[in-house]
Amino acid sequence: MRESRLLDHIYRRSADLASSFPGVLLGPGDDCAVVACGPQTLLTVDQLIEGRHYLPGTAIDLIARKAVARSVSDIAAMAGVPRWALATAALPAAWSQAESDDLFDRLATWARHWGCPLVGGDIAALPEGAPMLLTVTVGGDPHASRGPVTRSGAKPGDCVWMTGRVGGSLPSGRHLTFEPRIAEARWLADTLTTRLHAMIDLSDGLGRDAARVAAGSGVRLEIEAALVPVHEPRSPTVASDGEDYELLFIADADADMTLPAACPQTGTPVTRIGQVIAGQGCVIIDAAGRAWDTTEMGWDHG
Amino acid sequence: MRESRLLDHIYRRSADLASSFPGVLLGPGDDCAVVACGPQTLLTVDQLIEGRHYLPGTAIDLIARKAVARSVSDIAAMAGVPRWALATAALPAAWSQAESDDLFDRLATWARHWGCPLVGGDIAALPEGAPMLLTVTVGGDPHASRGPVTRSGAKPGDCVWMTGRVGGSLPSGRHLTFEPRIAEARWLADTLTTRLHAMIDLSDGLGRDAARVAAGSGVRLEIEAALVPVHEPRSPTVASDGEDYELLFIADADADMTLPAACPQTGTPVTRIGQVIAGQGCVIIDAAGRAWDTTEMGWDHG
Repeated sequence: MRESRLLDHIYRRSADLASSFPGVLLGPGDDCAVVACGPQTLLTVDQLIEGRHYLPGTAIDLIARKAVARSVSDIAAMAGVPRWALATAALPAAWSQAESDDLFDRLATWARHWGCPLVGGDIAALPEGAPMLLTVTVGGDPHASRGPVTRSGAKPGDCVWMTGRVGGSLPSGRHLTFEPRIAEARWLADTLTTRLHAMIDLSDGLGRDAARVAAGSGVRLEIEAALVPVHEPRSPTVASDGEDYELLFIADADADMTLPAACPQTGTPVTRIGQVIAGQGCVIIDAAGRAWDTTEMGWDHG
Repeated sequence: MRESRLLDHIYRRSADLASSFPGVLLGPGDDCAVVACGPQTLLTVDQLIEGRHYLPGTAIDLIARKAVARSVSDIAAMAGVPRWALATAALPAAWSQAESDDLFDRLATWARHWGCPLVGGDIAALPEGAPMLLTVTVGGDPHASRGPVTRSGAKPGDCVWMTGRVGGSLPSGRHLTFEPRIAEARWLADTLTTRLHAMIDLSDGLGRDAARVAAGSGVRLEIEAALVPVHEPRSPTVASDGEDYELLFIADADADMTLPAACPQTGTPVTRIGQVIAGQGCVIIDAAGRAWDTTEMGWDHG
C-alpha cells in the first residue's frame, strides 16, 4: 500500500462529488475540503477498532458500513441531516493496493448512501500486529424548524419512548447492519416539533444511555421492563447489551395522542416504555416491581 | 482508564467553552456538538501515530501539540481561520486516569490556543502493544475576502515563494514545536488578495509538495536551490525532509513589488525561490544548473 497511489484512486473516484452534492465546494485533493454550511452545523466523530468494534475477518463492506453508520446515528440522535464526512484509516502495512482501494470505495459508497459524501481524510500504515483503526467525522444540518434535539430537555411528566427493538446486537450481527434512524428522527421532529424534548441513540445500552438523558436533563427516568420491545431470541442482558443504535426519546405526555404506532416512511415502530419524574438517575422496573439502577449498566469503553 | 470518568473530566473542563467561544453553541457531552458556521467551512483531519509521527517517550504536551498543529497547519494552507476541533484518542489500556486527563487537558489547551476549541471527540482503549493513535479534525472559516486558497491556481509567469526555512525538522525536534502559519497566511491573503494564486503547507517535503501544486495547477514549477532558505546545520536532504509546515505559495509576478521581506505581525521571512512556467512537474535547479525532478522526493506515508 502506497499512500500516493491510494490518494490518486480516491481523487479519481471523487471527481463527480461537487456535481452530485452541491454543498461540496471542494472535495478530496487539497489541504482542506470546502463545504457550504450554516447557520449551524452538528459535528460528531467515532472510532472503529478491529477486535473491539468488529472481529478480525469481518467483511470490508461491513466494517466500512459500521464506521460510517455509527457517526450517522449520532446525527440522527440530534434529529439532524448528515451532509459531509471525513474519514481516517490506519491500515496494516501489509495491505495491498486493491484492499485499500476497496476499503475507500466502500466507505465512500456508504457515506453517499446516507447523504454525507467523503470530502477528505487521512491514511497511514500501521506497524505489524496493530489493530486496524478507522475514524469517521460527520457534519450535519440541524432539523430546520425544531433545531438540535439534545439530551437535556426532558421534564417531569414527560414520557420515555424508543424506536424499534433492543438486545442481542453483537451475537446477531445487527451491530454491523443496523440502519441509522435518520428518517425516524426527522419524522419525530416534524410531528412532535417542540414536544420532542430530548433524544439519544442507544450505543452503550438502554440502561446506561437512558441514565445519560436523566443526568443531562436533571430528572429521573423510570423504564418499565415489560414495555421494552426486544429482539428474539431474548437476550438475558437486554438493557446493557449496547450497539442497538435505536433512538430513545422523551416527549411531552400528550404525544401519546398524536404519534402513530410506527414511522410512516419506514415502518419502524415507536413504543412508550416509561416516564420522567422529578429526581435523578434511571431505573428499570421489572415484572415484580423491583427497581434496578441503570447508571452502571452497559458498555464503558474503558 | 475508564471512559466514563475521563468523559466527566472532559465535560467539567469544557463547561466554559460556550462563554469563551461564541461560535460554540453546544460543546462536549451530547451526541453531537453544535457550532455556528457559514456560509463556507474548511475541513481537515490528520492522524498522529506513535512510532511514526513521534517517538515513544515523547512528552504528552508535545504529542498533543503536534496532533493539533498538523491540522491547524492545513487550515493555514488555505488561508483560513481555525474555529473548532474534534479529537479522537486510542490509548493504551494500561494508561492511568491521570495520564488520560492530562492528554485531554493538553489537547484542549493547544486547540484553544489556536482558536479552535475541542467541541467533541471519542476515546477508546487499545490492546496491549498497539501504538497510541490520535486524530484531530479542524473546521475553519475561509479568508473573508480572498476565500479558500487552493493548490490549483498557479499560472505560468507566477513566482514561487515560501515562508521561513526548511530542512532537518525531525532530528532538530522542530516537527514537535513548529508554529502553524495562520498569521502569515492571513497576512498574505490580506496583502496579495487575488494575486495570491495557490498555497500548500510543507508537510511531506518541499519537493513533493511543490510537485503537488504543479499537478493541481497544470503548470511546471522551477525552484532554485540556492534561493531556498535552510536551517543550520544544513540537512543534505533538505528538499525531501518533510514536516517543515512552512507555507509554499504562488503569487503573481508583480507581488515582488508589494511584499515586505517578512510578515509584520510575526517576523517570519518570506522568500522568492522560483518561478512557474508552462508544462508539468517540478524541478529543483542546483548550483551547477542541473534540474532534479521532485515528484518522488519526500515522504510517502505508505
